[in-house]
Amino acid sequence: MTSAVREAPPAATVIEEVLPQVDGGRFAIKRVAGELVTVTASCFAHGHERVACVVRYRGPGDSGWHEVPMEALGNDAWSASFSVDRVGRWEYAVACWIDHLTHWRDDFARRVDADDLRLAARVGADLVAQSSALCSSDDCEKLEPWARILREEKDVERLRTVAMDESLFELALANAPRDNLATTQAFPVWVDRERARFSTWYELFPRSCSTEPGRHGTFADVDERLDSIASMGFDVIYLPPIHPVGYDKRKGKNNAVASEPGDVGSPWAIGSREGGHTEIHPQLGTLKDFRHLVMAARARGMEIALDMAFQCAPDHPWVTEHPEWFKHRPDGSIQYAENPPKKYQDIYPLDFDSENWRGLWEALRDVMLFWVEQGVNIFRVDNPHTKPYPFWEWAIAEIRREHPEVLFLAEAFTRPHVMHRLAKLGFTQSYTYYTWRTSKQEITEYFTELSQDESREYFRPNCWPNTPDILALQLRNAPLAAFRLRYVLAATLAANIGIYGPAFELGDNRPREPQSEEYLDSEKYQLRHWHLTRGDSLAPLIARVNRFRREHPALQSDWSLAFHTADNPNVICYSKRAGDDRVITVVNLDPYHAQSAWIHLDFDALGLDTGMAYDVHDALTGDTYHWYGAHNFVILDPARTPGHILSITF
Amino acid sequence: MTSAVREAPPAATVIEEVLPQVDGGRFAIKRVAGELVTVTASCFAHGHERVACVVRYRGPGDSGWHEVPMEALGNDAWSASFSVDRVGRWEYAVACWIDHLTHWRDDFARRVDADDLRLAARVGADLVAQSSALCSSDDCEKLEPWARILREEKDVERLRTVAMDESLFELALANAPRDNLATTQAFPVWVDRERARFSTWYELFPRSCSTEPGRHGTFADVDERLDSIASMGFDVIYLPPIHPVGYDKRKGKNNAVASEPGDVGSPWAIGSREGGHTEIHPQLGTLKDFRHLVMAARARGMEIALDMAFQCAPDHPWVTEHPEWFKHRPDGSIQYAENPPKKYQDIYPLDFDSENWRGLWEALRDVMLFWVEQGVNIFRVDNPHTKPYPFWEWAIAEIRREHPEVLFLAEAFTRPHVMHRLAKLGFTQSYTYYTWRTSKQEITEYFTELSQDESREYFRPNCWPNTPDILALQLRNAPLAAFRLRYVLAATLAANIGIYGPAFELGDNRPREPQSEEYLDSEKYQLRHWHLTRGDSLAPLIARVNRFRREHPALQSDWSLAFHTADNPNVICYSKRAGDDRVITVVNLDPYHAQSAWIHLDFDALGLDTGMAYDVHDALTGDTYHWYGAHNFVILDPARTPGHILSITF
Repeated sequence: MTSAVREAPPAATVIEEVLPQVDGGRFAIKRVAGELVTVTASCFAHGHERVACVVRYRGPGDSGWHEVPMEALGNDAWSASFSVDRVGRWEYAVACWIDHLTHWRDDFARRVDADDLRLAARVGADLVAQSSALCSSDDCEKLEPWARILREEKDVERLRTVAMDESLFELALANAPRDNLATTQAFPVWVDRERARFSTWYELFPRSCSTEPGRHGTFADVDERLDSIASMGFDVIYLPPIHPVGYDKRKGKNNAVASEPGDVGSPWAIGSREGGHTEIHPQLGTLKDFRHLVMAARARGMEIALDMAFQCAPDHPWVTEHPEWFKHRPDGSIQYAENPPKKYQDIYPLDFDSENWRGLWEALRDVMLFWVEQGVNIFRVDNPHTKPYPFWEWAIAEIRREHPEVLFLAEAFTRPHVMHRLAKLGFTQSYTYYTWRTSKQEITEYFTELSQDESREYFRPNCWPNTPDILALQLRNAPLAAFRLRYVLAATLAANIGIYGPAFELGDNRPREPQSEEYLDSEKYQLRHWHLTRGDSLAPLIARVNRFRREHPALQSDWSLAFHTADNPNVICYSKRAGDDRVITVVNLDPYHAQSAWIHLDFDALGLDTGMAYDVHDALTGDTYHWYGAHNFVILDPARTPGHILSITF
Repeated sequence: MTSAVREAPPAATVIEEVLPQVDGGRFAIKRVAGELVTVTASCFAHGHERVACVVRYRGPGDSGWHEVPMEALGNDAWSASFSVDRVGRWEYAVACWIDHLTHWRDDFARRVDADDLRLAARVGADLVAQSSALCSSDDCEKLEPWARILREEKDVERLRTVAMDESLFELALANAPRDNLATTQAFPVWVDRERARFSTWYELFPRSCSTEPGRHGTFADVDERLDSIASMGFDVIYLPPIHPVGYDKRKGKNNAVASEPGDVGSPWAIGSREGGHTEIHPQLGTLKDFRHLVMAARARGMEIALDMAFQCAPDHPWVTEHPEWFKHRPDGSIQYAENPPKKYQDIYPLDFDSENWRGLWEALRDVMLFWVEQGVNIFRVDNPHTKPYPFWEWAIAEIRREHPEVLFLAEAFTRPHVMHRLAKLGFTQSYTYYTWRTSKQEITEYFTELSQDESREYFRPNCWPNTPDILALQLRNAPLAAFRLRYVLAATLAANIGIYGPAFELGDNRPREPQSEEYLDSEKYQLRHWHLTRGDSLAPLIARVNRFRREHPALQSDWSLAFHTADNPNVICYSKRAGDDRVITVVNLDPYHAQSAWIHLDFDALGLDTGMAYDVHDALTGDTYHWYGAHNFVILDPARTPGHILSITF
């Protein structure tokens, strides 16, 4: 017995290999507003059945799905693109069904016998009638007459002509029932604002911004620096923690276990009787001063990024207000950070897994919301990998629920899986291994991975030649030429970059110990006074490079990166491209000696025809060269220039 | 307010990249009984937390899970293997948790301060007490005293020694609570009997087995052939459909539209007044005769495989009994098979999507179950890709529910996605493109894909140099040398192979038309009488090759295939390996001329040290060569031998 509504067998259509996706849709792919999402999938049915398929998508606030038809790429592969025009959570799915109408028409066109044609036309008439029944536009009234002719016309030649009517066919097709419809799950897309993809960071310690040596800097001092930072072309100013610094177990200069009177301690030892994560260090200024700084930066096209370091000094208010948020040792004392035999007694980690974990998680979320309310839309998160992943996934989603514009940079210099997990669960950008990748082979392999692997769908690199924690080997006791080449590399390889300044532009190259990545007299533990107007400052070079980055869309995203051959292991050559904007960079990796090379450009990667003549204009020197074809000669003297950053004109 | 049972935060452990798996566990990976499943996954937690992880698995009939600990491979990758020792559906999952004990011990070993050590020992005591509480074996009584010493011992050196006790540590570890436990979904494994992986098929038309020209062959005639087929080393005898052949619209010789009196028609035009898919063609014999043949084959170590062709001749009983199982044209007639303008009026396809689809699906399942009951455990399924995928997935699962030993070979020579889908949804083996892959590059690329791609987890190739439908270009009007080399290639490249005989061993090379893949006077439409004792029959070569396949485990599976360099495009060299059994094959792809080559063996792939001397014994000629190192010279004259099949001895 068949019930009134027919129970259909499972859909015979198949949708496989939907890309892009991250872990089967468990995590979102990432885009910025204005970009395209190009979806590919394998869609097919059995036998000679034809399929039609669409990408369905919807953005934040959309009540229903939009659809875009997929086009056949051959071999059962299909593709369609849609644009994500605003920030927030989007999703897409693929739907596929059996296309009886196209199958019918293709067969009809090949039929020969008159009787066969007349019968087949009647089959077509039934299909058209089905479309007619579902059709609701004004045009739809054309379908029924078409079906009638197909059913009744006896003249075979007329039938042929009528059956092949293109516009009626398209109308019927657009309104055909979707037989054997299969639909995939929805795959999420997180859409950020553009700065997620293209940003230029400048890290500075506000307390070292005083114009008088020895005086603790203030937000007002930072205000005074804004014009010069803006003139170097930075758009994010990242401040290490601005909160009260603990007094208890405070570290001395150069990380001495005991501090001297007057020592300022580490800004990452957060909290004292003066307050915790929502307070401002009294010597920096007031909340009002901070908000002024945020607005003053914004007026210059820059943003203030704050450091979120979720840990406490022993005199942080939470230690007494919420002792349950910390791990206790068997003697009742609070467990300080340690990596035996090393002890970090000035830092108490938080216990994300305590009985009152919800209370802590919510408090930390509220810390971030507090700063969002002060106008902070970018967080640089300190050591996110030492906190449980589910916390970040929850907390980032919580912030973004109301504030989808907030960006998060993960400071996790650790194992690849851990860094990738943080990127998957929501961090917008990630610090990278660039800081330690120096040889031509290392750079080529690493940036090929960053720009071409599937992980690019969620892992957005942010490349730093130095940080307050990392005076990298190639900068240690190194000449300014080394700083120059590391900046040019970062700025042309990666759309998101940053430096820790003024240590960088002034070429601070002194390690605490010969083999240490720590700076001597590091700002992490003491005030520094920087001679910003020094004649050999890299500020002009940095300004020139950053201006070029702003003028050239090619350098504002990462996926187009392509490496080209250079016949000298000390010379590296690569390009990026956005539409007609093409940038070729050639860098001498040796900061001590001039190096020359024949370079061989991959014209396919550049989207150029071989054998053409073109001009290349060097953004660093202002020189223009007339080049012809793929082979060209370069000679680079590090005393004069770290490399060529070449734009192409014809 | 906290409820009595603590609500824990989501598990902080992560399990990613579980392999092998097919479409996220939607389909089963395949193994045969006795093989290993080696599972790898990325497992990690945050910060310095250590994780432990296991593979859980269970086989048919198991009431609970078994566990095998995973071992760290470095970089957060882990691995473990388990053996699948019986046929049926298995499944596995990965579980991961935070290993506080190991973390504690590693830290403890690095601690220096006495007070620090005493406090840390008390932390350890608490962990050991937790293990003790969960422990149930006799040994467990050792844990509590251990915890007590850790808690109370004041002497730091004694504490160090006691804390590092290896066996107590292992005991505590094995019984530790699984904090932050994460578990993946279960991933299915379908385990077949060994013939799924290693089989040698011989296809023959029973009606052509008569010893008298012109007489319709019988099962009794096939009985008479069994010894000679067994002596050639085949283990599966595949029979085209053995059912009554339709009379209505019966095809004549060479696929003539009209048959002459006495024409036997195509066995794939199934069904007549004499019966349908569960009947036997009266001229072949009775069901009893068939069962006798099945048993007689089995007695010689062979199996009878039946063709399942789910379509009907116009006079099949179902056409009148179940007209609703067929599509009807607008004039009420039943829709025959067609590919306009071609019409196949002797064949009515079944409508798998009709109102009464359940009735049809169940009837087709029952057809297969009927033949299983007659002793048939292998089906070669005709054109499965022209039926909906959900039907096969359902039907194969239905058969296997009671009969997990049944194997299904998919005869789908179509697009890659379609063939792969059929393999995923349950077909045991699949015909391949081998029939058309002839050049060194084609063979190298295709067999690298078949043996190394992820699809090998579900797609088991079965390679045929010819079929009744495909007289491939390289065999058309070709010398016997071409047949020899195509057999040697198949037999050494693929563990599952088959030929359509006697056309193959007698070198039938005559196409119906010059450019046709159809045989002239094809057995598909008429009786043939074969001169089996012809002096130039390839039977002795086939027997020699097949004996070698049985003696050498290396040739009984596909994943070890590795190609080696030969400096002549007409000479191909590759090896397979199973433990100490290594087989190197060198084939001259040119059936007309002698070819020589220097071959360069990849000793890593062979698991051999370079620079060693060894003997290679040729299974085809019986010659032995003394080889040294990787470079060796071969010369192959097709008049004498198609190649070398070399086993290595030391």
